[in-house]
Amino acid sequence: MSGILPQDAAGAGRGPAPVVFFLSDSTGITAETLGNTLLTQFPGQRLERRTIPFITTVEQAREVVAVIDRLAAAGPRPIVFSTAVGGDIRAILAGSQGHFVDLFGAHIGALEQVLHAPASGEPGRAHGVGDAIRYQSRMTAVEYAIEHDDGQSIRALERAELILIAPSRCGKTPTTMYLALQHGILAANFPLIEEDFARRSLPEPLRPFVRKCFGLTSLPIRLSQIRQERRPDSTYASLAQCSFELRSAEDMYAVNGIPYVNSASMSVEEISATILQRMQLHH
Amino acid sequence: MSGILPQDAAGAGRGPAPVVFFLSDSTGITAETLGNTLLTQFPGQRLERRTIPFITTVEQAREVVAVIDRLAAAGPRPIVFSTAVGGDIRAILAGSQGHFVDLFGAHIGALEQVLHAPASGEPGRAHGVGDAIRYQSRMTAVEYAIEHDDGQSIRALERAELILIAPSRCGKTPTTMYLALQHGILAANFPLIEEDFARRSLPEPLRPFVRKCFGLTSLPIRLSQIRQERRPDSTYASLAQCSFELRSAEDMYAVNGIPYVNSASMSVEEISATILQRMQLHH
Repeated sequence: MSGILPQDAAGAGRGPAPVVFFLSDSTGITAETLGNTLLTQFPGQRLERRTIPFITTVEQAREVVAVIDRLAAAGPRPIVFSTAVGGDIRAILAGSQGHFVDLFGAHIGALEQVLHAPASGEPGRAHGVGDAIRYQSRMTAVEYAIEHDDGQSIRALERAELILIAPSRCGKTPTTMYLALQHGILAANFPLIEEDFARRSLPEPLRPFVRKCFGLTSLPIRLSQIRQERRPDSTYASLAQCSFELRSAEDMYAVNGIPYVNSASMSVEEISATILQRMQLHH
Repeated sequence: MSGILPQDAAGAGRGPAPVVFFLSDSTGITAETLGNTLLTQFPGQRLERRTIPFITTVEQAREVVAVIDRLAAAGPRPIVFSTAVGGDIRAILAGSQGHFVDLFGAHIGALEQVLHAPASGEPGRAHGVGDAIRYQSRMTAVEYAIEHDDGQSIRALERAELILIAPSRCGKTPTTMYLALQHGILAANFPLIEEDFARRSLPEPLRPFVRKCFGLTSLPIRLSQIRQERRPDSTYASLAQCSFELRSAEDMYAVNGIPYVNSASMSVEEISATILQRMQLHH
């Protein structure tokens, strides 16, 4: 439990920032996800974040409460997002001097009514192995994504559910990894290069699989910036070259009926959600 | 909006399963995460899941409500998890015949009071690019993880925040990818092999960085099963070999004071949360 007191809790200057705790009897991922989503509604706030996962005993819960109470006595009242399930632990955490946001308890009663069943009360395993077949499919997809990153392999392309194509540095690799790891999508990715544009056709190994292809494009100025970081002052990074490649890629997508999206201002999560929706790939 | 009616909604047999909707004006990730966490409390339930992201206009919201209402009229009442922020869209979605679980609205009022500030009311960007520096660090970490997967490169190991070590097939690669993609951790991973065990010492390139190392181990029977899938009936996959490698690895971790965890029944999310906590790596 050491190291969970924020370093600047006793700091001077503008005074200490309120501390936000994400507490969980499991990984803390759900508490962080919803908690941070809610906090994006308050963009101006200076906040200090602390995740404390795996709170599985009443002793651990009491230690955490002691930390929260100490902060509450010394400075601004902490905010506590909790997904703890177990009654004992939940009651202890709810009794701290922090402002308690019970992400679990707020909805579970209503769901019991709708589903005509009692909640199991087992500690959260939402991010455990859970369904072993589904979990294994995610691990297999990560392996597949690494083997098929950046056109490295054309082996077993027929197994791919998705082939992501784009000029270099439009975001193919992280998007592929995200889709594999979070959604178990078997995804390859392939760069579009000079000779593809000269021939005005898809890379030859992809042609049988045009229906699995999804394209990325970007804005020339954005792509040029990103390429500059990798190879400063190269032709590769020049605005002219970037414009040419993106225009050529967009032409290729259009000619082949390949859906695509402009990734210039999108996160991998947004690109992935768009691809899942457009390609109807949600498992 | 096509394809969002579940295929078995009109199915025979046990009757249609209730449909669970995850609705969002953004990616839908938060709605899926908390919704699925709550639903793990009802393990016996047969449910059909549908994510509908990017509901950004009242027309789209009305289309979704029409789908929900059609299902509600024909079969069990759908359950609707929503993280929609905008007042108009939220009101329309809340008016469907489904059971509405307002993940956003349930907590935002209390947070406004605690933070003494009004919510911005902007549609969710929790999974957008957001903080550009933080986002870029995640993308950089994915590149680093791929370059440093499975001991492929010893370049720039001094930049690593974490070096994950283990015998083959204990879960190094997906854990590294998860830490890079979700947390922006610069992580390399290195296999421990026969000659490391014979010498009873860390692979030479890692020795200056022993404080960054974290080990994985597993159960011999579990590791043997996983290796069998890759190379059936090999020495590599034999129970004796797996036992030897795991015992040797655990010895090496102990001798070098390297923290480690048994990954046999853990998910990548659980392994990652454990590593972040033990190595105090949370950004």
